[in-house]
Amino acid sequence: MDLSKKRSECPLSGSLEVFGDKWSLLIIRDLMFFKKSTYNDFLKSAEGIATNILASRLKALEENGIVEKSAHPDSKAKNLYKLTTKGIDLLPIIMEIYIWSDKYCAMPAELRNIIADAKKHKDKFVKGVVERLKSE
Amino acid sequence: MDLSKKRSECPLSGSLEVFGDKWSLLIIRDLMFFKKSTYNDFLKSAEGIATNILASRLKALEENGIVEKSAHPDSKAKNLYKLTTKGIDLLPIIMEIYIWSDKYCAMPAELRNIIADAKKHKDKFVKGVVERLKSE
Repeated sequence: MDLSKKRSECPLSGSLEVFGDKWSLLIIRDLMFFKKSTYNDFLKSAEGIATNILASRLKALEENGIVEKSAHPDSKAKNLYKLTTKGIDLLPIIMEIYIWSDKYCAMPAELRNIIADAKKHKDKFVKGVVERLKSE
Repeated sequence: MDLSKKRSECPLSGSLEVFGDKWSLLIIRDLMFFKKSTYNDFLKSAEGIATNILASRLKALEENGIVEKSAHPDSKAKNLYKLTTKGIDLLPIIMEIYIWSDKYCAMPAELRNIIADAKKHKDKFVKGVVERLKSE
């Protein structure tokens, strides 16, 4: 987010300028839960993100300190992406979206069980995922 | 959200198709915390939403059952908007965005105090706001 251009002093508005679009949280989901870490990994996700949108979202997420990029050990043509602490800290927001979805959207049964558990023990669920992500 | 066109089976993706944009959660914020309820109220918010974007977001929020529209008692030319239970249930997501913002974004001091309190007593905070909204 370019702070000189922010829409208002409202922190909710500022946060939505960072991740408030239909795609950014899906990339963050892939990094958090599906061990995805390269451009091609994200491209293969079921939603079928377009290459130009993926490139612009990854760039914005990096500029906003949500993800960090490093050289891929296997190929100079590839980069590895991982969540920063600032990115990992989006987990409670994503968890609450899943909990809301569980009430109002269709949901695969196996995910319903995970969400029921997360809902009952929110702090424990967040702690477990954060520990895993920080150790990766 | 038109379910026949949804991007994937992922409930996170489906939810973002409902409110994952830079504006919808700001309209919901205005309904939740700032007693705004008409098209002109939303138009006056600091972010300066464009009239066409506001009209399309209100329509989508209504179609998705997040807000409901009724005739304004003072004027036939106006509508009153209020959050449905489905819309009110977005509060925990919005609260977690504020908590994340508190860590990573600039924040007015009076809001910082409210968020510090919400963070310490999340369930109580959510319950208080939900009770107020349901009684309005």
